[in-house]
Order: sequence, then C-alpha cells, then structure tokens
Amino acid sequence: MTDFLPNARDARAALLPLVNGELDDERARRLLAVHAWSCLIEPGDAIAGRLVSTMGHEEALAAAVAGRSPTAALDAAGITSRTWQEALKRWLPRVNERAMRDALDVARRAGVSLLTPEDPQWPASLADLGDHAPLLLWVRGDLGRLSDPTPTVALVGARASTSYGEHVTMEIAAELVARGVAIVSGAAYGIDGAAHRAVLTAGGTTVAILAGGADRPYPSGHAHLIDGVAQSGAVVSEVPCGSAPTKWRFLQRNRLIAALADVTVVVEAGWRSGSLNTAGHAAALGRALGAVPGPVTSPASAGCHRLMREFDAQCVTSADDVVELLGGPTPTLFDMPPVQGPGERTDDVTRVTDAMSFRAPRETSDIARRAGLTPEEVTAILGLLTLDGSVIRAEGGWRRGRTGVPVP
Amino acid sequence: MTDFLPNARDARAALLPLVNGELDDERARRLLAVHAWSCLIEPGDAIAGRLVSTMGHEEALAAAVAGRSPTAALDAAGITSRTWQEALKRWLPRVNERAMRDALDVARRAGVSLLTPEDPQWPASLADLGDHAPLLLWVRGDLGRLSDPTPTVALVGARASTSYGEHVTMEIAAELVARGVAIVSGAAYGIDGAAHRAVLTAGGTTVAILAGGADRPYPSGHAHLIDGVAQSGAVVSEVPCGSAPTKWRFLQRNRLIAALADVTVVVEAGWRSGSLNTAGHAAALGRALGAVPGPVTSPASAGCHRLMREFDAQCVTSADDVVELLGGPTPTLFDMPPVQGPGERTDDVTRVTDAMSFRAPRETSDIARRAGLTPEEVTAILGLLTLDGSVIRAEGGWRRGRTGVPVP
Repeated sequence: MTDFLPNARDARAALLPLVNGELDDERARRLLAVHAWSCLIEPGDAIAGRLVSTMGHEEALAAAVAGRSPTAALDAAGITSRTWQEALKRWLPRVNERAMRDALDVARRAGVSLLTPEDPQWPASLADLGDHAPLLLWVRGDLGRLSDPTPTVALVGARASTSYGEHVTMEIAAELVARGVAIVSGAAYGIDGAAHRAVLTAGGTTVAILAGGADRPYPSGHAHLIDGVAQSGAVVSEVPCGSAPTKWRFLQRNRLIAALADVTVVVEAGWRSGSLNTAGHAAALGRALGAVPGPVTSPASAGCHRLMREFDAQCVTSADDVVELLGGPTPTLFDMPPVQGPGERTDDVTRVTDAMSFRAPRETSDIARRAGLTPEEVTAILGLLTLDGSVIRAEGGWRRGRTGVPVP
Repeated sequence: MTDFLPNARDARAALLPLVNGELDDERARRLLAVHAWSCLIEPGDAIAGRLVSTMGHEEALAAAVAGRSPTAALDAAGITSRTWQEALKRWLPRVNERAMRDALDVARRAGVSLLTPEDPQWPASLADLGDHAPLLLWVRGDLGRLSDPTPTVALVGARASTSYGEHVTMEIAAELVARGVAIVSGAAYGIDGAAHRAVLTAGGTTVAILAGGADRPYPSGHAHLIDGVAQSGAVVSEVPCGSAPTKWRFLQRNRLIAALADVTVVVEAGWRSGSLNTAGHAAALGRALGAVPGPVTSPASAGCHRLMREFDAQCVTSADDVVELLGGPTPTLFDMPPVQGPGERTDDVTRVTDAMSFRAPRETSDIARRAGLTPEEVTAILGLLTLDGSVIRAEGGWRRGRTGVPVP
C-alpha cells in the first residue's frame, strides 16, 4: 500500500521538503505508511492506534489493505474479529493512492511540515491520549513550539460570543502572554479568534489546531489571522492536507487542544457548545479545567456555569486565576481542617489574632512564631480573617483590623 | 439582678403580653434572667453561653452581677479565671435595671414577642451554633414561622447591588416561593431588600433578621418593607428592643441568617462584602452554600466568584440550582469513576449507546436493562453524552443523535 510511491527515490523526493533530520529509505517507507494510515482513518481511531502500536505502521497497513486478519496481532491488541471487519469496512473505501500522493504535494506547496512521534519536536503530552493519540501532525510554522516547555493554556469558547466574552478573552490572553504563557486555541470565530488575536497583538506565542488540513485556513474569514499564527507560532492538524473539516474532526480536534495545553479555560460557551467537548477532553485527561463566569442571564455563559456545576471547573476571573491552575491546586481555606467562620473563633484563630498587633504589621513568619503555628496554617487563617476585616494586609505584613467590638 | 422587677406580680404583668403559654412565677423569673443576660452581653458571647448552659440563667446571672467567681461551674464550663474577669469587665458596666425594664415595655408596645429555647416555636436549627447560639429571640410577626419545617433559603448579598443582581434575586426568590420555599434575609438595601420584596409580591413567606432591635426597622428606608415582612412572616432579632445595630451585631446577625436557613445563596457581593461573612457562617455550620456568578468585570460579583474559588460555593444560576442544593448534593458526572470524554468511549459508554435507538426514544430504565448497567450509571453517561449531541433527550426518553460520522 505504500505502493503509491513505489520508487524509493520518488518517496524520498516527496518527503524531503516535509521532514526534519535524516531521511533514509527505511524512514521514508515508514513515514509513507504513517501518512497512508492518516488518510485511511478518521482522527482518534483507537483500532488503528492499537494495531499500529502492536504491529508497526507498515505491517499493519499491509494487513489492512490486503484485507487480511493478522490474528496474533489482533489478539495482542485486544481487537475482536468483528471489530476488525468493521474497521476494514471504514478504511478500505478510502484507499486512494493518487489522493495520498496529492496530499504530500499540497503540503509541500503550502510549506507544511510532517511531524511524527519519532521526531524530537513531537509533543510528549499527546501520549496521554493513549490509543486515541494522533499518528502524525501537520505543522505550518515553528515545529519547536509544540515541544518547548513553555506553560500552555487553551483559551476556547463559543463562536457565538458576546463582546463581554471577547473582552475577557483578550484581557486574560494578553496578561498570560505577559507572564510567558503560550496560548492554544481552535481559530474559530468568537472566543478562539479573540484569543489568537490578543496573543499576536501582545507579541506572544499562539498555536492554532485546525479540524481540516493545515494548508486550509478555516474559517476562511480567519485566513489572515491563521497566517499570522503560523508566522509567530504554529498551525497544526492531524488530517492530511486538503482535507475538509467535519463535525467529527472538530470534536477530535478538541482532544488535541486539551492534550496540548496544561490548562483549558472556557471563556464563553452556550449550554451545548462544542467548547464543552474540549472541556470534557481536558477533564478526561486529568488536565486542569477553568471556566469564566458571566451573567446568568447570558446564554453565552450557560455552558461555563454548567462546567463549574457538573465538571468541577474552577471559576476563573483573571489571568491570576489561570496561573494558579497552572501551578497546580493551591490549598483553599476549607482544605484546612479546623478553621471556622469568624463567629466561631477556634483556638488557632485566637492564637493568630493574639500574635498580631493593631498598629505594627507583622510578617506571616513572625506571626507563626509568636502563635506557635506553621506559616501555612497562619496563611490560611489570615485569608479567612480578611473576609470580615478582622485582619488587614499592610505594607510589611499583616495587622489586626478594628471591628469596633470586643472579640468573644 | 432580676431585681429590676422584684415583685412577682410586676414581673408577670410585664412578661405576659410578650410570651406564649403558661406563665407561672418560676418561668417569669427565668425569662427575666434570660432577658437580663441578653442586655449584658453582645450577641454570640460564648462565655455567657457556656456559663448559662452549665449553671442555668438565674444562678449564672446572680454570680456575674455579684462579681463572684463560681469556681466549680467555671471549671465545668472550661472558663479560666482570667477569661471570667475579662467577661465581667464587659458585662458589669451594662447593668442597668431601668433599661432592662424599658426594653420589655418597648417590646410590648411594638407587639414584639419573646421566644426562648423552652418554647415549642424555638427553631431547632439554632442549636448548631453551640455556645454561640442566641439566648432568646425577639419576634415581630408569626412565631410559628421560625420552627415550621418549610425548606428555607437565605438569599443575601451586597447593599451596593446592581440592577443585574436585583433582577436575578427577584427571579430566584419568586421561583423559590412557587416551590414552597421560605426566604430568610437581612432587610438591608440591595439584594436583601430585593429578596424580601419579591417574596412579598409573590405571596410567599419571608423572615428578616435584624442587627438592631426587632421594634426598630433598619434601614429606616425599609421600614415599610419590614412591616410587610412582619405581617406575612417574621422580623427577628436577638438584641433587646430599642438596641441600635452595630458592626458587630451585623456580623453576629449573619450567623443567625446562616443557621436558620438550609441553604445560603449569595447573589452579589463585593470582594470584602459582609455577605461573605454570612457565607462563612453557613460553611462553618455545614450548610450548603451557593453563589450566583456575574460578569468578571463587575466588582459586585467579585465576592461571589471568590466564594466559588475559596469556599467551594456551588455555582447557582437559577432556582433549580438552589432546589438541588436543598435536596443535598446530587452526584455529578465526575463522581462516577470511569466515565470519560466522548473521544475516549469506554465500554460502558458503548454499552449505553448500543442500547439506544436513533429513532425510538427509550426510558433510562429500559436503556439500563438493555445495557446491563444501573439506571444511575446510565443517567450519568447520558448526561455526558448530551454534551456533544451523541444522545438527545426526547419525549418518552432518550435517543441517539446523529453526529454524521462513525463512532470509533
């Protein structure tokens, strides 16, 4: 089936403009097989994923195209005979050597590069997708962006965004850029576009994952924006160049956004927005998930509130909140066992307030020493006590506030 | 110290208009002692609370007024000698027999009733406040309201509310009334007032807890509204009639709001709003806590978002969400162990979709039977699958949606 470029010289000539590093005949054949697979399957096909990781791309491809059942490999991959036959029914109608050759040609002309897991620039985070990981990526722009260790946030949301949502997206995106965070999104109208645009304006790094071919800006109204993304960051797709975006490919594209980001933040989303799918992938991958609240009267925020309620998405109101998600969960007051409301002053609370002055601000460490508590305990209690003004953050530390009444 | 009405007949005459049920000399003396205590202390004084529950009101009062140290009782109550002396310094300057008599007189003229824990109408939920529970309540309106088992929600929020916040408050309040829920709030300007007003308009039951005397509408601009609350529900305070509201009394009043409600919902609150104090009490009491999100650009919603982030407040967007909090936590998708995003279809997900039809809607129980799963598991999976449209709720149950692409 890699017969679509049977001559080793032709194969190397077709691939050379698309790849980095050495390209011997063996690698060329392997890359052709990977490409062929990506032409046969839809993104996220776990049967193909399991088979190629069991047999290797070339052998698996040969078996599939010949309609053979590689029984030992199927058993090892846990693929039943029925599933295999179903898979063949999906794949074999797509065998089209001409289309496979053409896709490489389109990629070359569009300046799109081929990245596979054997490349050093392959993003390691995609391994979390398991059998559903992409077999390859087509990249327009800076290949190195995908594997560099910059903290990365997915900022995504509804196409049908409001000016509120776009405003918040741009604020958060610009602030994140200022803190050296890279932004991944889907280049769609609405929130995605606002995110990419704000990053480019702020001179940051942004990556767009497309549902169709990387050569094919979608939506076309964002062609200029997507060009800009390719110039400063990268435009990425797992489907062959020339492919159209489809509903399924959008849903699968979303898993790449979630997997490539450390944190996914949904800024606005309707009750059934596709962004919820991205959020679902992020949660399934164990990535931190945030959602920006909005008016409960705004349908464009209904999906965000749903994420908070049903998916335990963290409420994100600013870039600071996103940075907190990037740093992993920080303990909240209620993770501390015995701290209670100001009306129920526990001994520890009393010890903290006793260790503080109304006039002279004291550092947390100083308060901890005087109170005989750990600085972490003191920090949590101080956080609680700020709520009713009984302590106040001041230059040089913390001091007590005057509530005007004796503390019981 | 109950010498302020030394004659048993005078005492009964003063109390009779204020109480329900039989009033013999013994009860009269006890009630006078309770009232005297409430004149000596600030709300929530745990030292007084511990002492009276150890010694009884009358004996404790006699000891305090005489400046004696009832050593055995103090030991039993865990009150140190130093704490006791400090407490006496707070209490003794307030001994004023004339003021105590006058307070009863004001109560009588204002039609305010005295409620103590020995009355059947005493709200049992206040016991959760422990040593900080009020010693008595002054009630203007329907005494029975406080102890009836109607589900009760505290709707509270900033005085500096926005029209958005007031709108949402009124929507939620009216909807909750339609479902037979009673609303507690603090009668303040802004969110509190909108909540009471909406309940009165909807013909529901509402209770206002005041920081000053129950005879004394505060703020005065809400005098008419508070009269309305007293007529249809109850206006409640724990401080003697005629008392002015103070900062401390507002904070302690908040603990009563939180304790009297099954659920506390903060609709709008600034970053340091007093409503956060009510929320803190609710959380400390183990009551369910909700917060209504708003634009992250609105300072009036900043406290609500903070409650979600730091206090694990549930995101509340509608009366439905409040009712869910009233019913206790319902399992969310992520409480279910193995359900993942649509891209990662697990066997259970496949079994559910296999058990469904594209055309004929099926009941959850029917799907569960066909799939060999529990109805709870099916419900959780269906909830997840609605996100990307792979299942659709239809008349008579659920059916599969067409995503237009083969499911891997």
